[in-house]
Amino acid sequence: MTEWLSDLKSGYCSRTWYLNEEFCCWEAEPGMCVDWHKWSNFAPFSFLFYTYFAVCSHPVGCLYSKVLFAFTSAFLVKSWAPYAAGSGISEIKCILAGFIMKGFLGARTLLLKSVGLPLAIASGLSVGKEGPSVHVAVCAGHVVSRYFRKFETNAGEMREIYSASCAAGVAVAFGSPIGGVLFSLEEMSPNFPQSTMWKSFFCALIATAVLSAINPFRTGQLVLFQVHYDRTWHSFEVIFFIIIGIFGGLYGAFVIKWNLRAQAFRKRYLSQYAIWEVVFLALLTAVVGYFNVFVRVDMTEALGSLFRECNGMKDFNGICNPSESWWVAISLFLAAIIRTFFIVISYGSKVPAGIFVPSMAVGATFGRFVGTLVDMMQRSYPQSSLFSACVSDISCITPGTYAFLGAAAALSGIMHITVSVVVIMFELTGALTYTLPCMIVLGVTKATYAYFEKGGIADRMIWFNGFPFLDNKEEHTFGIPVSHVMVRDVTYIPASGLKLKDVESLISQSTYRGFPIVSDRESRYLAGYIGKREIKFVIDRAKRSRPIDPNALCYFSLSDEPTLYDPSIEHFQIGTSSSSSLDFAKFIDPTPLTVHPRLPLETVMDFFKKLGPRVILVEEKGHLCGLVTVKDVLKYEFKVENAENPRDNTVVGEMERKLWDRTITFAKYMKAGWEGRRTTPDDRDSLELDEQIPLTL
Amino acid sequence: MTEWLSDLKSGYCSRTWYLNEEFCCWEAEPGMCVDWHKWSNFAPFSFLFYTYFAVCSHPVGCLYSKVLFAFTSAFLVKSWAPYAAGSGISEIKCILAGFIMKGFLGARTLLLKSVGLPLAIASGLSVGKEGPSVHVAVCAGHVVSRYFRKFETNAGEMREIYSASCAAGVAVAFGSPIGGVLFSLEEMSPNFPQSTMWKSFFCALIATAVLSAINPFRTGQLVLFQVHYDRTWHSFEVIFFIIIGIFGGLYGAFVIKWNLRAQAFRKRYLSQYAIWEVVFLALLTAVVGYFNVFVRVDMTEALGSLFRECNGMKDFNGICNPSESWWVAISLFLAAIIRTFFIVISYGSKVPAGIFVPSMAVGATFGRFVGTLVDMMQRSYPQSSLFSACVSDISCITPGTYAFLGAAAALSGIMHITVSVVVIMFELTGALTYTLPCMIVLGVTKATYAYFEKGGIADRMIWFNGFPFLDNKEEHTFGIPVSHVMVRDVTYIPASGLKLKDVESLISQSTYRGFPIVSDRESRYLAGYIGKREIKFVIDRAKRSRPIDPNALCYFSLSDEPTLYDPSIEHFQIGTSSSSSLDFAKFIDPTPLTVHPRLPLETVMDFFKKLGPRVILVEEKGHLCGLVTVKDVLKYEFKVENAENPRDNTVVGEMERKLWDRTITFAKYMKAGWEGRRTTPDDRDSLELDEQIPLTL
Repeated sequence: MTEWLSDLKSGYCSRTWYLNEEFCCWEAEPGMCVDWHKWSNFAPFSFLFYTYFAVCSHPVGCLYSKVLFAFTSAFLVKSWAPYAAGSGISEIKCILAGFIMKGFLGARTLLLKSVGLPLAIASGLSVGKEGPSVHVAVCAGHVVSRYFRKFETNAGEMREIYSASCAAGVAVAFGSPIGGVLFSLEEMSPNFPQSTMWKSFFCALIATAVLSAINPFRTGQLVLFQVHYDRTWHSFEVIFFIIIGIFGGLYGAFVIKWNLRAQAFRKRYLSQYAIWEVVFLALLTAVVGYFNVFVRVDMTEALGSLFRECNGMKDFNGICNPSESWWVAISLFLAAIIRTFFIVISYGSKVPAGIFVPSMAVGATFGRFVGTLVDMMQRSYPQSSLFSACVSDISCITPGTYAFLGAAAALSGIMHITVSVVVIMFELTGALTYTLPCMIVLGVTKATYAYFEKGGIADRMIWFNGFPFLDNKEEHTFGIPVSHVMVRDVTYIPASGLKLKDVESLISQSTYRGFPIVSDRESRYLAGYIGKREIKFVIDRAKRSRPIDPNALCYFSLSDEPTLYDPSIEHFQIGTSSSSSLDFAKFIDPTPLTVHPRLPLETVMDFFKKLGPRVILVEEKGHLCGLVTVKDVLKYEFKVENAENPRDNTVVGEMERKLWDRTITFAKYMKAGWEGRRTTPDDRDSLELDEQIPLTL
Repeated sequence: MTEWLSDLKSGYCSRTWYLNEEFCCWEAEPGMCVDWHKWSNFAPFSFLFYTYFAVCSHPVGCLYSKVLFAFTSAFLVKSWAPYAAGSGISEIKCILAGFIMKGFLGARTLLLKSVGLPLAIASGLSVGKEGPSVHVAVCAGHVVSRYFRKFETNAGEMREIYSASCAAGVAVAFGSPIGGVLFSLEEMSPNFPQSTMWKSFFCALIATAVLSAINPFRTGQLVLFQVHYDRTWHSFEVIFFIIIGIFGGLYGAFVIKWNLRAQAFRKRYLSQYAIWEVVFLALLTAVVGYFNVFVRVDMTEALGSLFRECNGMKDFNGICNPSESWWVAISLFLAAIIRTFFIVISYGSKVPAGIFVPSMAVGATFGRFVGTLVDMMQRSYPQSSLFSACVSDISCITPGTYAFLGAAAALSGIMHITVSVVVIMFELTGALTYTLPCMIVLGVTKATYAYFEKGGIADRMIWFNGFPFLDNKEEHTFGIPVSHVMVRDVTYIPASGLKLKDVESLISQSTYRGFPIVSDRESRYLAGYIGKREIKFVIDRAKRSRPIDPNALCYFSLSDEPTLYDPSIEHFQIGTSSSSSLDFAKFIDPTPLTVHPRLPLETVMDFFKKLGPRVILVEEKGHLCGLVTVKDVLKYEFKVENAENPRDNTVVGEMERKLWDRTITFAKYMKAGWEGRRTTPDDRDSLELDEQIPLTL
């Protein structure tokens, strides 16, 4: 679709309207294609199309169509599906960790992201399709599976579907099924048991098989950029690989830092002008790209060309011409800088936009630059001891492999993943002989970014947006017990003594999703936990079956009979309930997760991450003394982090504090969504984060 | 080393003694190698060597040397390192899950497994080097890292080392670094956080880089069986791929079932004759192999040849000669059956022996058989509608790819892993265009084995040997609370009132590794947990510093002062201890993991698997009412499983009950080992499983 849109700038296929120029002229001689009608040949329309769709024989002419595509994409997103903006990776990470964002995976997001994405890419912005593909895949998984009761009612099963969808999304975006599974494992999913791995594997397999059957690139294979390197690498090249690795780490650290600042600026000053900002970016990208061929060309095409070896291949803008080496090297270097700048200002704008392929393009450009320099050095000083491993008269350096390694380094640097990058790069190119150099480069990249930053761009976006998310990759050491963080003023329910009207006012006034049950108000022996939903269910059911006195007594105590363990809801009887009493025993969780107030906070975080409870009760000698949720932990963590890095409290820090407050405020708004009311958020800032129920439904 | 040993049967290299025939004659013309001295040319020695090392110009002659190698390997293992027998995968899985097997990873095992493994392989037995390589790598990791205090004292760090070593072991065995990481993730490690993944990645990288620098195969690359398939696959071939996939699953189910029975037979009747059994197996394998060329040749060599396409390659026993197709097909089919039989009886014998490569050899042989049949069909009926996708006059079917897929299917079928098999196969051959067929085949294999068996051969071996291990892959549903399983009769320590002599007699008599602390004997309020080691440490320290009265009072209570959280051991002072009292406060864990007695057993198992505690205390309203360890859970699980499958209580079932009892009995023996006494187990049946302390040290 992107290619068709790009070619639509110049004409259309009269034989089959949906083909792009290449496929329309598939069997024709070059220059002899009769099926492709150029707009410029239509006398009556020529003026019109020259103005609007703009004949791309002159690059500036493309501006019109690019701007039009950018406008359309941003307008669609802004008007109907604000959640479709951006890549969606950060939000899906949060959803996979158990949070609820209503509508984020809905049919409308799916539809408009599918339409807006090709438009955004055809507009020439420095954005990729891989991140949004993951979002689209997860939307599809959600939309389809919610028709099945099994998944609708089981959040755990649903999250397995999401993990598998992530794998499928990456699998089709890169043509890399195993890479997709590993990406889902390494980056997206906080838990990845064997069963999820198998489901992801199967989902990626089917997705790739369908892609292969459709055969969209008409190459008959999944490998997007088939590369076959005749030469292998020499050990002296390792020093240059290390340079590329360091570049990858620096690139990641730089882009993450400045992109967050750009986003803070955007949130503060540009949120009213989202569409015009996108239009301006498209215009700027096109104009600047006019002066540098490596920025001008389509990123995917550029990647393929940069990876290639220079043996008899069609030349690509002179990169294989030794006499132009200096000029090419300078162009490549400038292209890497310019592209980085565009990524910083474009990622996060209000169109569907990923950062994978742009980063790979920067890495490949820089890598090719290094490769070209090394090649020039070797040609100039073939006798140098450094190049003693080279056989004279045979070209020794393969700049294409440097581009390949550069792409891997930049991708790893921005996302902070390693194993999946190696696999994706191999499935993308088939260059398996370069396993070892690739691993060396990624090792250096990892060491470099570990020195600078705290997480990949997705994690930093989560942090920036104030989403409640416990990062699995980070180690937390606070050295305090959980009692410092817990909520002490807990709203609890005594096992007996409450009247129906008390319970009703409690559940209508309180914003909590559930309540601990204690034996009595004095001793506060913990007796269990009950959800608000369950309380409502029992009351509604009782009211429907018989008239009930508002002063009826409510019992929340468990008897010790073994029938308690009987899970058969068929024989459900509301115990000894009558018009003057109500028994909630069947719906009490008798064994909520409890911890001692002195338990270190780190261990409690481990509980949240690994066991996924919605709430942990704090109990000492059987007495309830508090409760703790992920939010409480995160609030504390946030406080500590801000206290530690006061110098970060400039633009970003300030923005974040505001955003955090806003997230808390939005909890109320989100509640409305939870209660079933239809909500139409008019801006994605109003993400309906669930305040009370972290990690599991 | 294996190749050198094999060639030693026929002669030696006069130039450099450690080279095999191929490398010795590397630069010589075929047949003109002067450096390689054949034993048969030595007049004085000729009779001797003809008899013992046996000139391999006649295959039967090899028998002598093969038997000698088998005997040496078995003798070394039996005499000095019983733990070096077998593959070690199952045991390492248990160790990674937190169990202790003293000596299993020691220097002696490392040394003798390294020596015994090439001997076992050179003896021609149907055993592979990949599983043992993992064991050797983990031994190396253990031996090196125990010199560092950081690892010696931290079991968690140590297990990360083991996981990384597993990755390195597979990485060098297959020349597959990423495959190694994934194998460690998918098969070996119960937990695989990001940090472990990164460490495994780095370890595999270094291992592979060193391998690459040594360049043992003189091919300059890591890919063992470089294959380049010119042709791609056709969609009609999918039906044959499915047949191969089903074969893989059936093969796995068959071998696992009958190999366990063979092992039960071995344990019962052959344990006294381990060395002679190995000698007999080597003899049998060599004699039977004489009649089938695909069994006779070295398995690694066979794999490489079977994977190859038939275009201009050196022919391998006629597999590329169309006129011999029928004969080749029959030979291949028989070879697959014979090899399977040998795997069933050889795996588990008392030499270092893996099952990866033998399984792959069976799969490749069967795959090539299917491929040859399909090729014959296509040649005979080229006009059939099934083969309409084939272009006439160009050979259409590539039997080598069927062999490749068959190897993947068999490996997956026996180990029950999928993703790592795909990656290993690609890193092994470089055949990336076959990603999709490979995934289809493994999908079918997975579906097939899921129908039959409960786990891969490593898991079944764990089950068979009665090792205490909670399988992450299986779902447990018991529907009972933890109180049914817990130990009620707990040996606890009251916070005060015990005299020193009481404590000393308690720790000398009890076999437990630690004790819950309660406020007093009546109320039994849980106050903490203390390890036996810590108690000993405090007592020894006190005794060394001053004379102490055996009637001195011991205090196990925590004061509520905040200094408790002070982790600085520098300022350690044994509280208010004097000659008449002893304070253990500093060494008490104030917050042991506790659960409610009504908590479902499944949830408790989840705690063990995900949080890895050594023991979970059961507490109700603050009162201690029991404790539970992994062993308690496993005992119950075992009971349930036996009750559910009474028909399994034949040979294997009976053996297992005995083994289980024996494991329990050996707990005492193992205790001796733990206490620091030197133990030399004379049979690997006496694995020193730790009874009391599962999951963490």
